[in-house]
Amino acid sequence: MIGIFGANGFIGRHLVRRLAGGPERVRAVSRHIDPAFAASLPTDVEIVQADLGDELAMASALTDLRVVVQLISTSSPGLQNRYAVSDIRDNVLPQVAFLEACLAAKIERYVFLSSGGTVYGQPQTLPIPETHEARPLSSHGMTKLVVEQYIGMYGRLHDLDSVILRVANPFGPGQTFRKGQGLIPALLQRHAQGLPVRIINGGQAIRDFLYIDDLADAVALSLTAPGAAGRTINIGSGEGRRIVDVIEAVESVLGERFAREDGGTRNSDVDANVLDITLAGQLLGWRPKTPFMDGLRLTLRD
Amino acid sequence: MIGIFGANGFIGRHLVRRLAGGPERVRAVSRHIDPAFAASLPTDVEIVQADLGDELAMASALTDLRVVVQLISTSSPGLQNRYAVSDIRDNVLPQVAFLEACLAAKIERYVFLSSGGTVYGQPQTLPIPETHEARPLSSHGMTKLVVEQYIGMYGRLHDLDSVILRVANPFGPGQTFRKGQGLIPALLQRHAQGLPVRIINGGQAIRDFLYIDDLADAVALSLTAPGAAGRTINIGSGEGRRIVDVIEAVESVLGERFAREDGGTRNSDVDANVLDITLAGQLLGWRPKTPFMDGLRLTLRD
Repeated sequence: MIGIFGANGFIGRHLVRRLAGGPERVRAVSRHIDPAFAASLPTDVEIVQADLGDELAMASALTDLRVVVQLISTSSPGLQNRYAVSDIRDNVLPQVAFLEACLAAKIERYVFLSSGGTVYGQPQTLPIPETHEARPLSSHGMTKLVVEQYIGMYGRLHDLDSVILRVANPFGPGQTFRKGQGLIPALLQRHAQGLPVRIINGGQAIRDFLYIDDLADAVALSLTAPGAAGRTINIGSGEGRRIVDVIEAVESVLGERFAREDGGTRNSDVDANVLDITLAGQLLGWRPKTPFMDGLRLTLRD
Repeated sequence: MIGIFGANGFIGRHLVRRLAGGPERVRAVSRHIDPAFAASLPTDVEIVQADLGDELAMASALTDLRVVVQLISTSSPGLQNRYAVSDIRDNVLPQVAFLEACLAAKIERYVFLSSGGTVYGQPQTLPIPETHEARPLSSHGMTKLVVEQYIGMYGRLHDLDSVILRVANPFGPGQTFRKGQGLIPALLQRHAQGLPVRIINGGQAIRDFLYIDDLADAVALSLTAPGAAGRTINIGSGEGRRIVDVIEAVESVLGERFAREDGGTRNSDVDANVLDITLAGQLLGWRPKTPFMDGLRLTLRD
């Protein structure tokens, strides 16, 4: 059985829908499961409400699972670095405790969604290969990196079969503006509120936007791909886009023009982030299929 | 002024004595300061009792310091990996909070004593250069590595001038058997209790033993060396010794023979650890001066 932890989030919902009805049963685990989302799922999806910090509930949620997909993240790339200490307490600590619970439950494969957009820091080369030094500039990136390293240590000590996916910026239908994540929902929310769109660092930063269905495919492949065991794999579109260009693309699809205001600079933002996805092709047989504008139209139709 | 945090420990005491009476005043900070040790110090050493977890006390202890030497460590290489979660809570968390307090206090240089014996994990090459991958096999090594990385991030974001010293196994007079640290005090304690010496992994592991006065010299040089800013530097003897050979050397100095018992194996122990100390020579103008047997005689005379 496949356990999706963080099943109620943007990625989680797509992944549960993608895997439901497949060859292996799915357990959707989250602190809170939206009733409408739950009602929309096939009846063979098992739903478990449990908090990452609740050790007993987690141990129970791990029963009979072959593979765990860990999507839960309490820190956020948008919150800058004011919360380094609380990010360790609220994110790293329960993640490491959960990892130990997975060892105790004899989970066969642990798939962790890390942040390809923040663990590398300022890139020395573009696109960024997995061998690039990890020098985060944000507390969010640091907590992801630290959890990756604990996964690595447990792998060395206990032969934990893990796959770390360093994911670019996912986007798609159902992404809501929470915890400062997601450029497109942020734009739509500001616009809906009649507020100007805040442009940070002149909108010149380059990011790698990955359509959610392509991400769900990559995660699905990582559940079984033998060559992925113990590996860290970038999952992105492989293409860089300037923030201002994405804003203009959204405007062109909607046929509207957003007001803009200068949001100043933020030194925890890197100038550019585009992931080298060669390894994902080799190890997972995966490549993104959705052209950016197609993904954007599917997102904005929502 | 120089602040020595963890001043009451083995390394701390030697360092305070080494720096007292020098060109820059010394503040000795510890949760607990042994009265006899305090009484033995020159009167110009300022003594502050404060706990790392007490934010107000730490902010006060940081007042007017130019440089901080951070020796405090609550985790221990001897306790294996049963305490990964509590090591994060009790060691990483307060270390990162302290780092933030140092930024707020506008400390000019932060010297952190890391663990050259545990951050690298199983070495691919010997001696181990600083560029070697850090793949710890123990919770202790992992917490040291994580703190190093936070220091690095704060350096990138705030120009924190830090020096990370990855220290080998220090030994010398005054080392007591606490928290499972220190081979020589462990031997002496077992022997004094009439118990056999417990030999782990057949005593074949190779370690790098550094005499405490040489370590104190390295730390003292790191307080001002301009080339050390932002660098991670190995501090060791550069020589490897098998545990069984060290035991025999202790026996030969004492003229006694210890009873032995098989302590089994421990997979968080690496087979060999010897640090490449070339960089310390280049950046600090430092090299160890005390031959091992001389250091051992000084230690056992104690």
